[in-house]
Amino acid sequence: MGAARRSPQDLIETALGGNRRALAQLISLIETDPSAAAVCVSRLHPRTGRAAIIGVTGSPGTGKSTLVNELAKAFRRRSQTVGIVAVDPSSPFTGGALLGDRIRMRDLAGDDGVFIRSMATRGSLGGLARSTADVVRALDAVGYAAILIETVGAGQSEVEIARTADTVLVVEAPGLGDEVQAIKAGILEIADVLVVNKADRDGADNTLRALQTMLDLGSAPRVVPHHGQIMEVSALASNVAAKGWRPPIVKTIAPEGKGVDELVDAIDRHRAHLEASGEGRSRRRVRAAAELEAILRETLLDRLMQQIGRVGLDGVVDRIVAREIDPYTAARALTGE
Amino acid sequence: MGAARRSPQDLIETALGGNRRALAQLISLIETDPSAAAVCVSRLHPRTGRAAIIGVTGSPGTGKSTLVNELAKAFRRRSQTVGIVAVDPSSPFTGGALLGDRIRMRDLAGDDGVFIRSMATRGSLGGLARSTADVVRALDAVGYAAILIETVGAGQSEVEIARTADTVLVVEAPGLGDEVQAIKAGILEIADVLVVNKADRDGADNTLRALQTMLDLGSAPRVVPHHGQIMEVSALASNVAAKGWRPPIVKTIAPEGKGVDELVDAIDRHRAHLEASGEGRSRRRVRAAAELEAILRETLLDRLMQQIGRVGLDGVVDRIVAREIDPYTAARALTGE
Repeated sequence: MGAARRSPQDLIETALGGNRRALAQLISLIETDPSAAAVCVSRLHPRTGRAAIIGVTGSPGTGKSTLVNELAKAFRRRSQTVGIVAVDPSSPFTGGALLGDRIRMRDLAGDDGVFIRSMATRGSLGGLARSTADVVRALDAVGYAAILIETVGAGQSEVEIARTADTVLVVEAPGLGDEVQAIKAGILEIADVLVVNKADRDGADNTLRALQTMLDLGSAPRVVPHHGQIMEVSALASNVAAKGWRPPIVKTIAPEGKGVDELVDAIDRHRAHLEASGEGRSRRRVRAAAELEAILRETLLDRLMQQIGRVGLDGVVDRIVAREIDPYTAARALTGE
Repeated sequence: MGAARRSPQDLIETALGGNRRALAQLISLIETDPSAAAVCVSRLHPRTGRAAIIGVTGSPGTGKSTLVNELAKAFRRRSQTVGIVAVDPSSPFTGGALLGDRIRMRDLAGDDGVFIRSMATRGSLGGLARSTADVVRALDAVGYAAILIETVGAGQSEVEIARTADTVLVVEAPGLGDEVQAIKAGILEIADVLVVNKADRDGADNTLRALQTMLDLGSAPRVVPHHGQIMEVSALASNVAAKGWRPPIVKTIAPEGKGVDELVDAIDRHRAHLEASGEGRSRRRVRAAAELEAILRETLLDRLMQQIGRVGLDGVVDRIVAREIDPYTAARALTGE
């Protein structure tokens, strides 16, 4: 296949011209070849900034995939093009399609205004977060108006990926049990819009009320005495105050499309708030700084590794394993401190 | 409290002498102060290497916490001291006690042969994985014979933390639904021992058979055609061949303690295999190399940041946000390439 031998530059120009196949190849290149990714980003970055980037996260079983499909359809009804990036940090598979994708293909296939991509961990987790940011950048540069980033789990890795977005939806559903409730604490803090999906199920109103209570929790951090020490719980409420935005709670029944238009409206309102308040700009700064730091870490390490060489590094690792030296002392020695 | 003002050196020596309170303070120091952590590790590292380090991971709802409690009791019956590190990458809380800890405290409190610690994300995910490794190192140096690292979720972050262990248990349970099944693919690859917990539930035999089938999958990678591309599925079986160890599947009913002694036997057999096959040594090398690289990344970045200064960095970030420069080009410029 001659197309596969195209230069990155050629692929970028063809993708920017609207060729879906070239875009798919470009994204594969970004995922698999870090040095090509750097070249691509240099060309793509100046053309970005127009898309509404929406992160969708929540525990397994909340119906995120179906909701993302319905959101895509709602954006299409508003004549906006849609890119979907489904990220599964727990899976080593990539390049193909994963969870919920069979349904997704049936619903959205054949619509040229929708581009779908699944991603998974090939190497490190940090690598996945960065690849996701670069793939979103490609979709933005090429002109997709709304980009939905769906993450599968609810762990810290998903939170980091969701932070690539301008607006983060956290999806809950009734009756997911205690352990899932506990997970919420971490991800609620990043929610711009809360969704109670499966709102026709028993317990939906309880879920709604629980979320409202968490939003209402006074502005002082809760203090929970435990083990004789004081554990400070950074309340969601203090975040609400800091952001000047109280996350609205939207009830949806995704398979029936119920509540989805209201959800799109809430996303639009949040986007308007981001621009009016300056919060959008400050988030973009935080994101750019985090991305720059991640790239610097890898650049600096690569350069040092080239200096030390494989054999040199192996020797140091052997000494650490033999407990002749500890890793911090070894790091200081290797960096010439 | 005068005790809190102790020097790291003083804390370390007192902890090494068997003082639990000093150990708890030492761990807090390691968690919160990276430069103190470096000092502590230098002293602790040479004293490590005796503990059996066991990672316990699996999806929410599999009953991991209860199983970890029962495992701890089984080790205690064999007169081994036990350290438990419960890690929740999805939670921003730390230092106290989290999921399942009330049960844990009731069961295990008052036994001086057991030390329990909960950890959570304070900063970055990478930071949590490194803190966990350092806390495990402290418990190892102080002399705990078995160290159980329990992670709450089943995402990539949990996988990275579980890799700190010599032996990784992946806990499954019947009836957790499709999405959870899909998550399995990623974590099964790191399993040394598979546990079907809640084995008295309907569907336990199905879960067992599904796991056996995954282990049996021929040694050739499965090829799944999708989206017109070929997606290579790295089969668990190829891992089995590479390790020379087929993960045994142990059925347990944790609240009744059933199957727990068999599980400890399986862990012991795996530990013997690690030493006999040389696999233990190669894992320790991989772990030491990964840890060294992580420390190097932070060391190098910190040093560069000190050179550039806050103002210099802010200026570059502003230019990235304004799309005057892309982050890769900025990184090259900052590192003087």
